[in-house]
Amino acid sequence: MAFSRFGQFLTQGSGIVQLMDDLGSAGDAGGDICMLGGGNPGAIGAMQDYFRNAMRTLLDDPARFDAVVGNYDSPHGDARFREALAALLRRTCGWDIGARNVAVTNGSQSTFFVLFNLFSGAYESGPERQILLPLTPEYIGYADAGLGREIFTANRPSIEPVGEDLFKYRVDLNALSVDDRIGAMCVSRPTNPTGNVLTDDEVDALRDTCRSQGIPLILDCAYGTPFPNIIFTDAKPVYDEDLVLCMSLSKLGLPGVRTGIVVAAEPIIRAIGAANAILSLAPGSFGPALMLDAIETGDIIALSNDVVRPFYHGKAFDTVAIMRQAFEGLPYRIHQPEGAIFLWVWFEGLPISSVELYRRLKARGVYVIAGEHFFPGLEADWPHKHECIRVSYAGDAGRVRQGVDIIGEEVRRAFA
Amino acid sequence: MAFSRFGQFLTQGSGIVQLMDDLGSAGDAGGDICMLGGGNPGAIGAMQDYFRNAMRTLLDDPARFDAVVGNYDSPHGDARFREALAALLRRTCGWDIGARNVAVTNGSQSTFFVLFNLFSGAYESGPERQILLPLTPEYIGYADAGLGREIFTANRPSIEPVGEDLFKYRVDLNALSVDDRIGAMCVSRPTNPTGNVLTDDEVDALRDTCRSQGIPLILDCAYGTPFPNIIFTDAKPVYDEDLVLCMSLSKLGLPGVRTGIVVAAEPIIRAIGAANAILSLAPGSFGPALMLDAIETGDIIALSNDVVRPFYHGKAFDTVAIMRQAFEGLPYRIHQPEGAIFLWVWFEGLPISSVELYRRLKARGVYVIAGEHFFPGLEADWPHKHECIRVSYAGDAGRVRQGVDIIGEEVRRAFA
Repeated sequence: MAFSRFGQFLTQGSGIVQLMDDLGSAGDAGGDICMLGGGNPGAIGAMQDYFRNAMRTLLDDPARFDAVVGNYDSPHGDARFREALAALLRRTCGWDIGARNVAVTNGSQSTFFVLFNLFSGAYESGPERQILLPLTPEYIGYADAGLGREIFTANRPSIEPVGEDLFKYRVDLNALSVDDRIGAMCVSRPTNPTGNVLTDDEVDALRDTCRSQGIPLILDCAYGTPFPNIIFTDAKPVYDEDLVLCMSLSKLGLPGVRTGIVVAAEPIIRAIGAANAILSLAPGSFGPALMLDAIETGDIIALSNDVVRPFYHGKAFDTVAIMRQAFEGLPYRIHQPEGAIFLWVWFEGLPISSVELYRRLKARGVYVIAGEHFFPGLEADWPHKHECIRVSYAGDAGRVRQGVDIIGEEVRRAFA
Repeated sequence: MAFSRFGQFLTQGSGIVQLMDDLGSAGDAGGDICMLGGGNPGAIGAMQDYFRNAMRTLLDDPARFDAVVGNYDSPHGDARFREALAALLRRTCGWDIGARNVAVTNGSQSTFFVLFNLFSGAYESGPERQILLPLTPEYIGYADAGLGREIFTANRPSIEPVGEDLFKYRVDLNALSVDDRIGAMCVSRPTNPTGNVLTDDEVDALRDTCRSQGIPLILDCAYGTPFPNIIFTDAKPVYDEDLVLCMSLSKLGLPGVRTGIVVAAEPIIRAIGAANAILSLAPGSFGPALMLDAIETGDIIALSNDVVRPFYHGKAFDTVAIMRQAFEGLPYRIHQPEGAIFLWVWFEGLPISSVELYRRLKARGVYVIAGEHFFPGLEADWPHKHECIRVSYAGDAGRVRQGVDIIGEEVRRAFA
């Protein structure tokens, strides 16, 4: 049985497939595994209580529960949810938007497939266009959105050492080259995998560049403002019609419901709805139904700021401390933890590739992600790409410590 | 802000987009609307009770509920669900399969996007291939799976009058032409939109043809065996490694959870898992979690046969009776109701197109689907394409009667 080229592409292996396979098989296997690789959010008791109570409330209204499971939502998402979210964002961020500016998707990954193809490839006139990632490393999940076509072009960051053993990436604004071969720009904020948070100035500079070129700036806020707001610096939530904001319920603690959200100009929202209809009829109803009350009351903002952010903030700095012990004497630097649920560790001069390090760690039951998967669109060879790993600190603290210790052992062995 | 050609395709309007928009806006609007257009399943009290109890059971096990909402499933779907379903199918159908032959998706629509692209377009060698639909009319949702590329070729059926005012489509086996430009064949059974159920002999003939060409036969069982089994004739459930079975939880009454299922040979399951990872990280967890017990106990089969099927069987024949009154004197024939949740009505010689009839009915608050959307890949002009409509009988009986009466009035006016 032969597959098309599309099928060959699917089965050739890719970073995100490996990541999700690892996550699935580690979850299925249980046992003595340190899962520091995947993007599962942490188990936060107060959030779990909130979700269970929300489901009980939904069940207490049988007619509403029946409608949630028994009807397709509109391809743009449930009207009441979209209206409630627009009202919340008007109220808390002062944005001039309505339900017409909000669409629901089956998770951010689906969002990006649509957005990246909406703004890349062949246009009615002019050259083919690509998506510009102004700062890599950037999210591994973007890489295959072209389904085999190379739709990204990317820039290296400048690297700024911070203190003894930290560093920070900055957008190299001088190297930004935007012409009619660029259809859109995209950045995650906080950045997945590094936990970097672009400064307000950096975001403003990117917005200016995009506006002058007449292309949108896509802001991936899966970990960002206004919720779940896993940001440890000051970062202003921004929106106007030149921006496309991608949000998600996953990192509040709900990845299983697969709910992504897009806030954008109306033509983009209409395109997202059409893509939902064509690719999946409608987005899933559970996530929006479960969080409707939290959005109508504004609880979602309070939970983000008072529960979710402090949980990860504490873990981030605990894990940095653990790493400092485990990596002592090694040539390591950790990206300054400014948000998200990962630490990005750079072992300068690492004698093996990060893929080989990943393999050795996996053989010892420790799952991380090799750094080189996080440079979609960056053609030039650059040793730095092979010297970093992404480490999630969202899981059980004991496992994180155990895993970090083993990372230290394996890196030490590689340098020996 | 310019869109790519992909974006232009998305926003140009298509049958499935219109259908889902209609469904969404009718649902949001409420009021005096007869929704006979969309694919929402009926509200069956016993099923709603079952789903609510299943959710209560899930909530009574907080650790399990927390895991369902709080973790990504594996990209192939939850391992326990896949094993349970394989065991059920081994037990009830005698198929030689394991979890390795089962994948979960975000609904059948997502399944078809992947499968159709897996078996069409460019291959490593040989000519470009298409998906052959051996009998049209066929499901409207397939039509845009090529995202603007024409990936279907299709055959007309032979039409067999049955009694005074019924008819049945049959696969025109003599017209089947399968060569190396065909990558796979696909049929829905029961057929959406007609409620036709291909006979076992027809299925066997298609399997033989596919096997001799070395291509898979995709069987869309969204309404079929073994669940929800909305089939009023005898139809044998079949599986072997040359078949790809597509199932769904939607028509049991759970469209909101967006759960599709594929049963197929291992390489296809691996491709589906990879596509899930790339397009949506993982399928939603709620549907599989909600129905796990029903699958482990076999309740899902009993519910299908004892609750779901009789519900639609009764409604089908009630609605035929209503149509006979409303359409009296008109040149109508109804496709013999053999399954699914629709009636397919043919007004031979209709002086307006079915799209115009759709528009006039919508203006009166009655939603149906124009027949011409259901002929993907059928190039030849054929008046029959414009003389049919799909009418759902899943909804409230009073609304169905009211809607059918208005259809009768509008068709009578068109013929006048």
